[in-house]
Amino acid sequence: MITRYTADFVLTCDEDMSLVPGGAIDVADGRITRVGSSEGAPPADRVEHLGGLIMPGLVNTHAHTPMTLVRGAGDGLPLLRWLNEVMWPREGRMTPEDAWWGMTLGAAEMLASGVTTTCEMYLFEEAVIEAAAAAGIRLMMSPGIISALDDAGGNRLGEVVAAHTRYHDPGGTVAVGFGPHSAYDLGIERCGEIAAAARDLDALLHIHIRETREEGADLEAANGGRGTVEMLAGAGVFDGRVLAAHSVWLDDTDIEIYAGHGVAVAHCPISNMKLASGVARVADLRAAGVTVGLGTDGPASNDTLDLWQEIKTAPLLARVASHDASALSPADAIAMATIEGAIALGYDDLGALLPGYRADFIRIDLDRPEMTPVTSPEELIAHLGWVGSGKAVTDVWVGGRQVVCDRDVVGIDVGRALHEVSTRGARLARESGT
Amino acid sequence: MITRYTADFVLTCDEDMSLVPGGAIDVADGRITRVGSSEGAPPADRVEHLGGLIMPGLVNTHAHTPMTLVRGAGDGLPLLRWLNEVMWPREGRMTPEDAWWGMTLGAAEMLASGVTTTCEMYLFEEAVIEAAAAAGIRLMMSPGIISALDDAGGNRLGEVVAAHTRYHDPGGTVAVGFGPHSAYDLGIERCGEIAAAARDLDALLHIHIRETREEGADLEAANGGRGTVEMLAGAGVFDGRVLAAHSVWLDDTDIEIYAGHGVAVAHCPISNMKLASGVARVADLRAAGVTVGLGTDGPASNDTLDLWQEIKTAPLLARVASHDASALSPADAIAMATIEGAIALGYDDLGALLPGYRADFIRIDLDRPEMTPVTSPEELIAHLGWVGSGKAVTDVWVGGRQVVCDRDVVGIDVGRALHEVSTRGARLARESGT
Repeated sequence: MITRYTADFVLTCDEDMSLVPGGAIDVADGRITRVGSSEGAPPADRVEHLGGLIMPGLVNTHAHTPMTLVRGAGDGLPLLRWLNEVMWPREGRMTPEDAWWGMTLGAAEMLASGVTTTCEMYLFEEAVIEAAAAAGIRLMMSPGIISALDDAGGNRLGEVVAAHTRYHDPGGTVAVGFGPHSAYDLGIERCGEIAAAARDLDALLHIHIRETREEGADLEAANGGRGTVEMLAGAGVFDGRVLAAHSVWLDDTDIEIYAGHGVAVAHCPISNMKLASGVARVADLRAAGVTVGLGTDGPASNDTLDLWQEIKTAPLLARVASHDASALSPADAIAMATIEGAIALGYDDLGALLPGYRADFIRIDLDRPEMTPVTSPEELIAHLGWVGSGKAVTDVWVGGRQVVCDRDVVGIDVGRALHEVSTRGARLARESGT
Repeated sequence: MITRYTADFVLTCDEDMSLVPGGAIDVADGRITRVGSSEGAPPADRVEHLGGLIMPGLVNTHAHTPMTLVRGAGDGLPLLRWLNEVMWPREGRMTPEDAWWGMTLGAAEMLASGVTTTCEMYLFEEAVIEAAAAAGIRLMMSPGIISALDDAGGNRLGEVVAAHTRYHDPGGTVAVGFGPHSAYDLGIERCGEIAAAARDLDALLHIHIRETREEGADLEAANGGRGTVEMLAGAGVFDGRVLAAHSVWLDDTDIEIYAGHGVAVAHCPISNMKLASGVARVADLRAAGVTVGLGTDGPASNDTLDLWQEIKTAPLLARVASHDASALSPADAIAMATIEGAIALGYDDLGALLPGYRADFIRIDLDRPEMTPVTSPEELIAHLGWVGSGKAVTDVWVGGRQVVCDRDVVGIDVGRALHEVSTRGARLARESGT
């Protein structure tokens, strides 16, 4: 059965960022079967006239969504005090049920703002996966691996392999990768072991690299000044599919290594600004052929999961940092938030509206002051990039299934989730005395 | 007659950024008569239980709102080509009626997002003033003065004085200042003449200063290398009430001059980033005692008039530029968008909820995923700063009169305004061949 969705415009997010006026997409069995003009299209079984603009759902390439429970806590403290005095004491008291509610509320926020896929790095993988599945959001789960768990003597890597075995379902909405925190936390050798395990399963390795200027200084000094990226490459960490979050402090050699190994980057401009981490070399990375997606990072360092803000902020930051008003275009940023983000996560059938691709798409209301006027296709795309926001998203589909209907998140009791996260977040604050 | 508005929280935006749980404000004759706890308050004639959070309306200190008609045009072109090839050809074909509709649509966008005062620099002052009055937004109008008009032989300064005489009504919603474009456009001597005329009327002088690194190089070279700020001070330009937009490229001496003369700054971080102008020294300015407000700039360099985005972006930019995660707090940014912005425009009874102040206030819905949880007053203020947005604003009052009711802009036919700006914006593009 083919359902056709028609709109005033279809933005495909293909390589040419094609915009089809009076366009339509046909969907069957969760996949797109046709994209093009409504006129002259063959008959469909059912037609929904949506109006507005249809585009692919957004892909959030780096998040720690259960941190909704600690949103906004300790703001303004310097980074290490923020982590030691507020974040970790609160997070250390989190239960799987807390994580489930935190993920649920975050999924509601993402879906309502048009994010249809999220790549998560966190503990409590079962709770996160089950919450995402219940919410109907597509998930790339990277269960976190940190040295504290290794040191505690458990078999964390075995748990992650088990989660992959149990939940990884590439044809469905859940995929499972590996989430080693970082070289500076785990050491190079341990990162190499985890990468080998991920490679054996052809799974994504999702790791923080070079977020701050200071991190890894001890590690590098202990290794004769060799850079973190060079050491990771030497340990084979980049031999499989790798997503490197942040990657703010890269030198030219690091960028060459990324490009040579096909390492993709999750760029998180708002988090990098809020925590004063620095300015990632996005234009240089893209020029070198590195795939760059966009990520919100955790809600405690943003503090929202509305990826439209990254679509706006990435060009703003690239432009002011380079003193070049053409450094990164809104169309580039939209591509990074859709097709390039999907590629960064390892999908070859997601993030664009093309025949055979997964039917993850959103409807944008164009009858809004901030979207007016439109005097050319380029202007419409510029509007989307500069002033697109969750408030313009009215309807959302994941795998052909409608999950947001006229701004209502169908699969989540948002009122209950607000109550649960309020209560549980307050408990974490109280119990931790922060 | 006293009307009491109660809320779960009242954020006063006074010097201590006080937050009153279970608070209320009393309003009579367009002014606030009492602020405090709902409990134990004396009787009022009428009580509206609003719930949520009440705070002062936002103050946009620098805008060219009729440029809604050219929103998004020519994006990605380098600055001078952008102005010469797209902006000026389109703006040059604008009629007063176009400006009226552009201002009307922009006022709808501002009011709906909680901006209750806007400081405009533009031509077509009659149209802008009349559109603002019809919309119900508070306006500080600074009719633009540019060399092209002086060169054409008219008496532009006389027109601005006449507009002041006719429309300036400090007790009402319209005030009129003077808007000389810049020293590099008009020359120092002409700026001095205009400043003297403004001073005679105790009116605000609203001028662009040091927006880009390159501007004014010819002017400075012709004057033995003396800086623009120093020359303006020497010509008496800062002897009255002055609002300096942008002020990105200031050295320490310039900042001392601003502080010594009480020059206020309209900081426009998004415009400065989009056009790659640079990073204003906000922390240094504030440390020197300079009043700094926030501005959207024109919608063609932003491309929205939702000042919440500046509230978020100002700390983000200050932090990443200084590598200091505590450089500017969300509370600082909220103060800049309210009380400090009002002071920058010369009001001493606007921008805070205090007895005797004008009753410009907004209601924020707190039952939203991005605002949850709240475990302390500091967290609530942090949420407002980081994730506040037009989508959380439900109701707006200006001078005690409700102008937005449950997200509906009462005084504007938004559908008509969308149609008019669409049609007129397209005409400007077509006629200018851009």
